Amino acid sequence: MPKLDLDAIPRTDATGYPPPFDTAVAGRWYRRLAPAAGLTLMGASHVTLLPGAFSSQRHWHRGQDELVVMISGDAVLIDDHGETPVGPGDVLAFPAGEANGHHLHNRSDAPCVYLAVSAGKRETDSGEYADIDMVFGPEGYARKDGTPYNSKRIP
Amino acid sequence: MPKLDLDAIPRTDATGYPPPFDTAVAGRWYRRLAPAAGLTLMGASHVTLLPGAFSSQRHWHRGQDELVVMISGDAVLIDDHGETPVGPGDVLAFPAGEANGHHLHNRSDAPCVYLAVSAGKRETDSGEYADIDMVFGPEGYARKDGTPYNSKRIP
Repeated sequence: MPKLDLDAIPRTDATGYPPPFDTAVAGRWYRRLAPAAGLTLMGASHVTLLPGAFSSQRHWHRGQDELVVMISGDAVLIDDHGETPVGPGDVLAFPAGEANGHHLHNRSDAPCVYLAVSAGKRETDSGEYADIDMVFGPEGYARKDGTPYNSKRIP
Repeated sequence: MPKLDLDAIPRTDATGYPPPFDTAVAGRWYRRLAPAAGLTLMGASHVTLLPGAFSSQRHWHRGQDELVVMISGDAVLIDDHGETPVGPGDVLAFPAGEANGHHLHNRSDAPCVYLAVSAGKRETDSGEYADIDMVFGPEGYARKDGTPYNSKRIP
């Protein structure tokens, strides 16, 4: 059925970030919609950020466009431009290759819910983290000098 | 800026549908977000359906995944499964190649607003309309016997 039964799609708070970078996304609960819905040409996640949680470490992608729409609740977008409030109906766009590390932080006292969509070259995608000594690529996470972390990215 | 200033993005009710198929989408006002935001790997439209308007003629795509999230207001999804109410926060997914003609109809007395995202092979995409004598492809609109309509698709 095209209308997704969100409650029936498995929800997880899993992350592949190596410690101590994983603690920022504790409180991020998400459902991977694409596999559940049979979509093969885009990625889509339905995400709930509990109060205090971040969407990710501040990052950008070389090979994928990202689009976020806030469904309910409030968060703060943090990127190279500074801090920007994000509320219901707001749309955020992150073009592939734009080296502007970004993430969302829920500083409110209620959960916020958003949809994040990505498209592009998933298999060869890579990118960097703005605030920490980490990059990512098809092989996983590494330090900026190339030394791998002992951790696997979650597809 | 990643947070889109929606009001600053041009809004149009243009359609390439040949008459009389164009009247169904009178009352559909949309903003093309991808070019405004610098996205090149996905399509994204921010759409307002006025009361009585349809999102499109009932159609499906061979070459593109489509994802819709309702931001505010209510509509009815019409597809081969029947009719399904769609409200704020609901997510609809239409996998490429699934021959299930679909569209939204605003039967309420207030506008509804949704975001529609697409990804895949835009240049070679084709598809069919379920209720009318029309197909589409890279060359534009045609009857099901292949005779072209004298009308151009809007990219």
